[in-house]
This record gives sequence, structure tokens and C-alpha cells, in this order.
Amino acid sequence: MVEPEILIINPNSNPAVTSGLDAAVAGFRAPGLPRLTCVQLDDGPFGIESQAHVDGAGPMLARFIAANPASAYVIACYSDPGLYIAREATPRPVFGIAACGMLDALARADRFGVIAIRDVSIKRHLRYMRQMGVIERCVGERALDMSVAETASGEGTLARMIAVGTALRDLDKAEAIVMGCAGMARHRAPLESALGIPVIDPTQSAVAMAIGAVIVGSGQIGAR
Amino acid sequence: MVEPEILIINPNSNPAVTSGLDAAVAGFRAPGLPRLTCVQLDDGPFGIESQAHVDGAGPMLARFIAANPASAYVIACYSDPGLYIAREATPRPVFGIAACGMLDALARADRFGVIAIRDVSIKRHLRYMRQMGVIERCVGERALDMSVAETASGEGTLARMIAVGTALRDLDKAEAIVMGCAGMARHRAPLESALGIPVIDPTQSAVAMAIGAVIVGSGQIGAR
Amino acid sequence: MVEPEILIINPNSNPAVTSGLDAAVAGFRAPGLPRLTCVQLDDGPFGIESQAHVDGAGPMLARFIAANPASAYVIACYSDPGLYIAREATPRPVFGIAACGMLDALARADRFGVIAIRDVSIKRHLRYMRQMGVIERCVGERALDMSVAETASGEGTLARMIAVGTALRDLDKAEAIVMGCAGMARHRAPLESALGIPVIDPTQSAVAMAIGAVIVGSGQIGAR
Amino acid sequence: MVEPEILIINPNSNPAVTSGLDAAVAGFRAPGLPRLTCVQLDDGPFGIESQAHVDGAGPMLARFIAANPASAYVIACYSDPGLYIAREATPRPVFGIAACGMLDALARADRFGVIAIRDVSIKRHLRYMRQMGVIERCVGERALDMSVAETASGEGTLARMIAVGTALRDLDKAEAIVMGCAGMARHRAPLESALGIPVIDPTQSAVAMAIGAVIVGSGQIGAR
Amino acid sequence: MVEPEILIINPNSNPAVTSGLDAAVAGFRAPGLPRLTCVQLDDGPFGIESQAHVDGAGPMLARFIAANPASAYVIACYSDPGLYIAREATPRPVFGIAACGMLDALARADRFGVIAIRDVSIKRHLRYMRQMGVIERCVGERALDMSVAETASGEGTLARMIAVGTALRDLDKAEAIVMGCAGMARHRAPLESALGIPVIDPTQSAVAMAIGAVIVGSGQIGAR
Amino acid sequence: MVEPEILIINPNSNPAVTSGLDAAVAGFRAPGLPRLTCVQLDDGPFGIESQAHVDGAGPMLARFIAANPASAYVIACYSDPGLYIAREATPRPVFGIAACGMLDALARADRFGVIAIRDVSIKRHLRYMRQMGVIERCVGERALDMSVAETASGEGTLARMIAVGTALRDLDKAEAIVMGCAGMARHRAPLESALGIPVIDPTQSAVAMAIGAVIVGSGQIGAR
Repeated sequence: MVEPEILIINPNSNPAVTSGLDAAVAGFRAPGLPRLTCVQLDDGPFGIESQAHVDGAGPMLARFIAANPASAYVIACYSDPGLYIAREATPRPVFGIAACGMLDALARADRFGVIAIRDVSIKRHLRYMRQMGVIERCVGERALDMSVAETASGEGTLARMIAVGTALRDLDKAEAIVMGCAGMARHRAPLESALGIPVIDPTQSAVAMAIGAVIVGSGQIGAR
Repeated sequence: MVEPEILIINPNSNPAVTSGLDAAVAGFRAPGLPRLTCVQLDDGPFGIESQAHVDGAGPMLARFIAANPASAYVIACYSDPGLYIAREATPRPVFGIAACGMLDALARADRFGVIAIRDVSIKRHLRYMRQMGVIERCVGERALDMSVAETASGEGTLARMIAVGTALRDLDKAEAIVMGCAGMARHRAPLESALGIPVIDPTQSAVAMAIGAVIVGSGQIGAR
Repeated sequence: MVEPEILIINPNSNPAVTSGLDAAVAGFRAPGLPRLTCVQLDDGPFGIESQAHVDGAGPMLARFIAANPASAYVIACYSDPGLYIAREATPRPVFGIAACGMLDALARADRFGVIAIRDVSIKRHLRYMRQMGVIERCVGERALDMSVAETASGEGTLARMIAVGTALRDLDKAEAIVMGCAGMARHRAPLESALGIPVIDPTQSAVAMAIGAVIVGSGQIGAR
Repeated sequence: MVEPEILIINPNSNPAVTSGLDAAVAGFRAPGLPRLTCVQLDDGPFGIESQAHVDGAGPMLARFIAANPASAYVIACYSDPGLYIAREATPRPVFGIAACGMLDALARADRFGVIAIRDVSIKRHLRYMRQMGVIERCVGERALDMSVAETASGEGTLARMIAVGTALRDLDKAEAIVMGCAGMARHRAPLESALGIPVIDPTQSAVAMAIGAVIVGSGQIGAR
Repeated sequence: MVEPEILIINPNSNPAVTSGLDAAVAGFRAPGLPRLTCVQLDDGPFGIESQAHVDGAGPMLARFIAANPASAYVIACYSDPGLYIAREATPRPVFGIAACGMLDALARADRFGVIAIRDVSIKRHLRYMRQMGVIERCVGERALDMSVAETASGEGTLARMIAVGTALRDLDKAEAIVMGCAGMARHRAPLESALGIPVIDPTQSAVAMAIGAVIVGSGQIGAR
Repeated sequence: MVEPEILIINPNSNPAVTSGLDAAVAGFRAPGLPRLTCVQLDDGPFGIESQAHVDGAGPMLARFIAANPASAYVIACYSDPGLYIAREATPRPVFGIAACGMLDALARADRFGVIAIRDVSIKRHLRYMRQMGVIERCVGERALDMSVAETASGEGTLARMIAVGTALRDLDKAEAIVMGCAGMARHRAPLESALGIPVIDPTQSAVAMAIGAVIVGSGQIGAR
């Protein structure tokens, strides 16, 4: 590999989400840093909404990663589909945005809350938080109850996020908010401004960590 | 503040440790990224080895942070002295390297082990891991049983780190290693090479996270 | 569906494993009980040994289940591949043998140990136990370090299982043993006889639970 | 012992509860399966409602078990009185319905809620769930606030159970319901039908597990 | 040291709090018991309300303890400032009232609730409960939202405590109440009388434990 | 009740144990303090060694307590038999020595280890620690493998306790030791002297807490 590059993989086939990722990570493009390339799985579903979408995406992601050498990978879907199969497919570091977003929140505040898109995802996320062993520091998740598509494009999204974030902050006592979706990045700054506590876009968290790993050379020498 | 800057604060007064930090973060200096400035607390102890050192450093750090505006701060000591008092002293993000190093390890692998300098620190670290709520994913800590000074300069340090890291990997089943000290960065690459699993320098983890927060503008608007 | 039937699905394509399942559940065939049918996924891998095998099996299982109506399903692989995607694919009860084996052990004794086939599976199992929230009652896992095929057919398997089970009982203080594989059933009785503590074959546990659900009619009325 | 038999022991002296148990397990009677015999402790209290009832029942149960050889035993009271003393009194498997009901729920769904008869029992149940190490997967318990007798015979019981179950499902996010009493079995099917999520009668769960143990021969050879 | 003496140290400089401590422990003064001496840190803040106050108090306490030999020490502030640094400063037992108050509650009842003075302290207390590993048995904390000074002297304090305690008992299901402040002792008896469940003054808990340690001679022989 | 009195109840019928309790609490007898009366259950077993002994003792204790009014009660057996039934039998405070000994250890040090008499008790103690929610701070238990009688009277007991305590301190990293039996008090001081870390006699812990409750009047006003 000539030039360090981080592949940020949107496991759905919605190009609007991919270009949203591209915008989300724009600030991380600078001379001397690894190149950031946002791609999508063209054979993925249009949105990752069900367990079938999540579980179907894993093997696709692993094949994509095996076929596309890079310095590090970011799986840009808040269910971290295929995180462990992907790590089997490459010795390079693989980051899941759900894990990274929550871990970043833990680096910023004592307890965090999550804004989910849909209520049906929350039980999957809770299961994942138990697996991660971080559930003691999560005050809970609350849903916007919008589709991924609506969230990415809708007008009323920010207002709804502020309402849900306020509930997490005031009722559940969250001290930081994780946006539980890959497609919410453009709302991060206004939401943080409205809530007055750190708001985390998980793709940005994962990209910062991935850049760190590439810069120091971790995982570049065949580690597991 | 004209130009974004991250202050990386060594709470001890040993300039060798500070220049070690400077070397550890050299790879993160690039056009377009926040300026990284490594400083030390000249009135701090020569090494942070006891609980008195840790607890004494907190108020000093808070005063230093209050007096030195920056975009974000990194507390570069593996006991995260003064993390919560510092967050009271500034609305900007404050990162502790112990927390960030462990969280970064969790983003890379399932369970991690920690290489401590001295056995006496381990009980303090365990207490902190319980407080962090991450202890389920720590396989344990093992000590080099060297002073901070020896570790920073000694000849046999790497060999000892490989022995301890091998025990964490093979006996305790660690899948990643966190170097539990601010002064071990130069051993990261050879140790990872020897062990074949990710090795985390916690200062580098914290700096990557801090850069991320500054780039996206988190905590720049008076949050908490 | 005219007659109640439970499908026991071997997600690999090894017919020896499938007929081993058939033998394992023979005692549960009786007039008045649901019919037990053991099947295999002919397009599955010959053995489920890697994360890729586990994650690849999930969508295959879900498709199979959606296409083959039954009163209840048992996923007969100790990684419970596709458990959650399968539950999306049918309103009927779906049982994973890993979950059921461990839960059955908890019904029999205070703390259990697991005999794994290979060391490499243990970290996956630990992750699952954390997700299940039962890890406090697991004393640990120890591996035979044999392939699934060797275990199913090998001569020395029982002797090795007794050695590993003895270590779990005497060193780790297990009060029950879960055999962490779908292909070990014929060793259950001699192993229990040798160890003197309950030994659980997880397929048998899942089948007992599935029979219970079908008999009482749970999940037969479109529940989730 | 000539013919396999499972003793299902009602530790109270209310024959209506015993015959309710008999009805609850009727579906599990089939040629080739162990005989199921429901008995009561004639010197037990009329209902197990206080801690004194629970603790008083334990030694009585143990004496009864020691005097009545069987292939396996089910303690049919949702406080699992005397579970550990009973295991000392016999080498045969002993199942407590509270443990089995909750474990069965864990085999069916991610998180469960419990319908208790009376509010005063909830703290005892919570203590037991902490002891069992499963409390992370319990969304909570809500009480009918009826006596055992009222519940077993009352007209309005089902309506009240649906109201409480709906609260557990919609407010507490339970994905399965455990009926926290030995005397509610006849409400299982209509309650599941009304709620649309699995509803568990704990006696049926324990009997299914006990049948499994007897069929495979576990605990028949002097194990612990 | 000629006569056994326990130093009860108020880390703030408010003499009203110190004399309140004196009154709180009056019942523990008896012939044959260690002398109880309540002191204040004259260079401490007037009230311990912020993290800066807590962290600033630690080193002051350690210096005071090192300079004032006694048989045991009680740190009389509900944030247990300097507990670990103090233990480094003396081989004699050092008790923190927050820890002791919660542990005493655990000796009296299954789950406890805490009455905090101000909402802003609750997150610090939660962090401490996680560190202590007792959070599973805390039903939560509710705040009076009064200053320490108001609480110590105010007229309406008891009425407000009864309201908050009632919420902890009835909504959160607390079976005991810990008063989360060093200055509430005179309200203990009327609050317990009003609530009908044990109410714990944490200074009294710590003093009882300290007396116990001194009487039996624990920590008088240079232990750690 | 004219004069405050604490009943310390030995649930076995061995008078040597009772007089050992009497000696253990002698230091707590002083003018102005509640009277301490050590009694035994004459119909109890000679030693509490099995689960049957533990469970059998509970109802006997409750009857004894109901018939013998006192200001507070201490159940002086390291399995805390009948703790919850006893609390139903009296509104006065009831303390179990196992709970109090462990809680006292938590007030003195970060993590504790327990010296058990017999290996067979350890699984019962672990279950109790899980129920108490304190297991994260227990490094483990190690057994003397002596009978209660041997321990109370034997010559080599102290030497064996020092060996076991040393293993807990050096191998398991205990920072305090709880003597897991009511009959070891006379070894406390020499064991602490040999180990150099706090050694806790649990009866003394419970008595100190009970004295505290009586002095402040907690539980004297009809509280549950």
C-alpha cells in the first residue's frame, strides 16, 4: 500500500447516506493524514433497519474488506454489522461506529444517552451494550421514530432530536448524547448548541480513532 | 482563541517525560490539525507514583487549565489525576489518558490487559476501572516493577514489557494491551511487533480523540 | 400445520453431525410429543469454526426457517448463529443451543464451566455470555483443542473431555459442565459418570425447552 | 426405582393449587415420558406469602424429598423455597420454578418482566434475581396486588394480568412475561394472546427441564 | 498515644457543621470508649459543594492526619474527600462517611436510597457508588436542592426531607434511607419516625465502625 | 424494655462457641453502652456446617427473636441464617455477621478475601456475595479445611490461618481479610499482626454496627 487510506464503508446502498458520511468526515481531511474514502455496498439494502439487514451486511462487508486493502476500516452503521467477521478478514484495524461513538462518549462524560432512529432498534442496541460491558454508564435510549431516510433528509428532524435529547438530559440525566445512526452528522453542532452537553456523531468518533491507529502504525504489522 | 490548540499536560516536573510525550504525538502534527503543545507542571512531583502525587496533582492541573485557554486538554498521566475537577474548570473537552487508552483498546479488541509500572498502582487502577464500568473487559494488570524513571530511560524495559505482555496475552487471554504509563510510547511499535496484538499508548489514544473533538467543534460552545 | 413438529437445524453440511443430533434427541421421541426432525443446511460449511462461518450461517438459517414452517426451531450450533434474524423470520419460538445449554446449567447448579472444542472459540463464547448477562455464573471455559470432526469421531475424545472437565470442576470450581458443541452428545453420560456433577448437552436442553413451548402452545399465536 | 417419575411439590397445603398444578402439566403427560405426580405438603401453610412461609417450607421440602424417591423434583412455588437444602437431600435433579421460569424467558427473548401477586414479594424476588445473576435482563416486576387464593380463583384476574402485562411490555419494554406464581397457569394462553409476546408459566418451564434431565439420564448416577 | 482517640474531621471551615457533628456523635461518648474529637480544617472551604472543593480537601486532610496522631480517623464529608491519600498518610484506620453510611444501610435493608443536598452532587455520588461496587443495591438519589448551610440551619428542611424520602420509599422502593450529607444528623430520628424505614446518618455509621476498629485493636499495629 | 440490650445469638448449641462470642465482644462492654448478651439456640445443631443446618436455623432464630424482646439482634453465624425471616419477626434491627463482616471490610480496604473453614461452604458464600452485590470487591475465598470445632479449639489453627491469609493477600491481592466464621475471634489480632493488613472478625463488626443503631435509636420506633 503506497499511501495510507481509511475506508469508511456504508453498508447500505443509499448514496445520500454515503455523501452524508463524506461531509461528516470532511474536517478530518488534511495534508499528512490518511486519505479518507467513503464507499457504499452497492448490493446492500437501501437502509439497515432490520436484524436481517444487519446480519446480511456482515458477510458482504467482510468480502469487501478482504478485496479492498486499506490501512484501516470504519463500518459506518450504528449496529456495527460484521465487526468480528471483518476482523477475521483483515489484520488491519476495523472500527465499528456504534462502539466508537459510545466509547467516545465515555471519554467525555460520566453517563450518556442515545438517540435512536426507531424504537425497534433499541433492544438490539441494549443487547450490544450488554455485550460491550458499558451498560452501567448508559442512561437509556430514546427513539425519534423516523425512518433512516426521513432522518437524513427531513425538515423536522433537528427539532425532534432536540426534544428527545432534552428528555435524555433532563429526565434520564445523560451528560453526553450519542447520535445512534450514521446519517445524523449535520445535526451534531446545532444539537450540541441546543443541549449544552457533548453530542457525539459516531462516525466522527470512529474516524478519529482510526486516524490515530494509522498514524501510530498500530495494526500495520500483521497483528491478529 | 485564534488557532485551535490542544494542551497535553504532564502533571509531573520531569522534562524527559514531557519530551517523551512530544515524541509520542509527533505523528499527529499536520497542517490543518490543531496545534499540539506538551507542557509540564513545574511545581508537580518528579514522578506520579503515590496516591498523594495523584491527588496533589488534581488541583494544580485545574488551576493550570483555568489559566491557559485551549481548545481541548489531555491529562497525560495514567491515573487521570484531576479529571473531574478539570472539567469544572473549563467548558472545553478534557481527556484523561487512562480512560482514553482503555476505551481505545475496547474499540480494537474484546478484552485487554494493562502493563503497569509498579505493582502498587494496580489497586488504584482497578478501582478506576470499576468506576469506569469497564472492568468486565479487562483481563487484569501485571506490573513491570520499575520506577517511571527507569521505564522512560532503561535498557531492559522493552524485554521486560514483552515478557509481561506475553503473560497478559497467553495466560490472561488479553487481545490488546494498554501501556499503563505516559512514558512508554517509544516501546509501542516493537512491543506490538513482538506480541502480534494491538498495543495502545494511552497518550496517543487521548490525542486522537481530542483532535476529533476539536475538528468537529465539540465542546467549543460552552458545553457543560 | 397439521402435526406439531420441531425442526432441529444443523447449520453445517456434515451429515455425521446431523445424525449425531438425531441420536442425541432420540429419547425425546414419544407418542403425543411434537415430531423432531433433524436437518442440515446443505449449502452451509462442513464445520462452523470461524466467525465467518457463524455470521454466514445466520442469513441461511433465516431463509431456511422462513421456507419451512414448523411449531418451533432449534439452532443446533454452539454459537447460536442467526438467533435474532431467525426470530424476525418466524413468529414461532426459536431456541439457540448455546443459550439453552447455559440456562439449563443455571437451573441445575450455581456455577458452570464450558468445554469448548477449540481455544479460538472461547473469546466468541465469552462475548456471548456477557451479552446474555450470565457471565457471573460461568467459572470459565477450557478447550479440548480438537476440530469438530475429530470430536465427533475421535477415539480419545472422552478421555480428553474428562481431563478438561476435571480441571473445570477442581480448579475452577464448576458445579455443572456444559459441552460447548453440538456434536458431543454421546459423551454426556460417561462424562457425567466420571465427573459426578451434571453434564449438559446443549441440544438436549434446547429440545426439552422447545417441546415445552410447543406443548403449552407458546408462540403458536403469532407472538412477536 | 422402576418407572421414571417426577414429583411436583406444592409446598403449601391448598389442594386447589395442587390441582391447578396438575392441570398445568397435563400436556406433558404422554406414553414414554416420566410420570408426573403433583403433591402438596399437608403440613405447609395454606399459602406461601411471607418470608416465614418461604423459610419454613425449605426444611419440610427437604424432608419430603428425602422420604420420597423420584427421578427428579420440581419445587412449585415462585420463591424456590429450600432449593439448596433439597439438593443436599437427594442426588437427583431438583428444579425451582422461579429459576426455571426466568431462565426459560431468557431462552425466548432478550428481556423479561415478572407479574407478581403481591407487592411485598417483589423485594424478595429482586434479591433472588441478584443472586441468580440475571437481573440485567429483567425489566422489573409489577404486582397484581391480589392474594394467592384470589389469583387462583378470582374472576377479574385475567383482566388485571393483562393490564399489568401491558405495562411491563409497553412501559418497561419487556419482550417476554414470567407469571410469578405457581397458580396462574390457566391464564397463560389468553394472556399471551392478549399481549402478543411469550408468556411463561414457570411450573411448565420447570417440568419441561425436569423431563429433559430424566430422559437423558442426567443426575441419575449419584451426581452431587 | 496514651488514650484511644478518634478524630472526626470536618473538611470545611464552617464551625456550625463541626458542632453539628459533635452533637451527632454525642451518644457515642461513654466511659471506656475511645475519645471522640470533632475538628474542622480551618483552611478548608466554608462548604464542600464542588468537585474543586472535594479534590482540594484531600491533600489538606492527609496533611492534617499525618500531623495529628490518633487511633482512627473519620472523614466527615459525604464525598469522602482524600480517603485514599489519607490511608497513605497513616497506618491507622480511616473511614469515609459516604462509604460507611451506604455500607451501614446495606447491613440494615436490601436496597437504599440517598437524599442529596443538591442535584449537582448526584453524578459524583453515582460515580462513587460504581467505584464502590454497590450500585446494584441503590434505588437512586434524590436532591433537596438546598445549600449545605440552608440544610444545616433551615426551618423547612425536615419537611423537604420527608417529601424526598417518601418519594425514595414509595416510587423508588427504597427500604432504607441514607442522608447524603454530614450536616443532617438532627433530622435522623424525626425522618425515620415519619418514613417508618431505617434512616442512616453517615457520620454516626462511620463513628460506630471506627469505635469498633479501635476497640478490637485493628489497624493499631502498622497495618498497611 | 427498660435497659437497651443487644442479643447476640449463636444458632448452634455448642457452648464453647457461645463463650467464644462472649470473649469476642468483651471490649464492647462499657458503662453507657447497650448490654450485650450472648445466647445459643439449645435446639440448634452442634455446628452449622450444611445447608440443612443453615436453613433449619432460620425459623428457630425467628421464633427465638419473637419471644425475646431486645433493642437489636446479631445473628452470629457466617451464613446469616434466617436474616430475612428474623426481620419479619421484629421491628428492631437485625444484623447478620457475614454481611456486616464483609461490609466492614469494604469500609477499610478496596478488596477483601475470606478465610472459610471448609471448602464446601465457599459456594454458599459466593451465592450470598452475589445476592449482596459485593462480589466485585471480593478477591475470593480460601478454606482452612477444618471443622468448626477444630477451628475453635485446635492448636494449629493460627498457623493455618496465616498460610491461607498470606495466599489471599499475595496471590489474590486481598487488602483486607474477613474471618468467615463466628468462632475465630481470638485469632484476629495475631493474624492481623502476621499479615499486616486489616483482619475482620465479623461478630465484632456486627456488634459495632448494632451498638451504633441502638445508640442513635434507629429501628426503635416500629420501623419495618
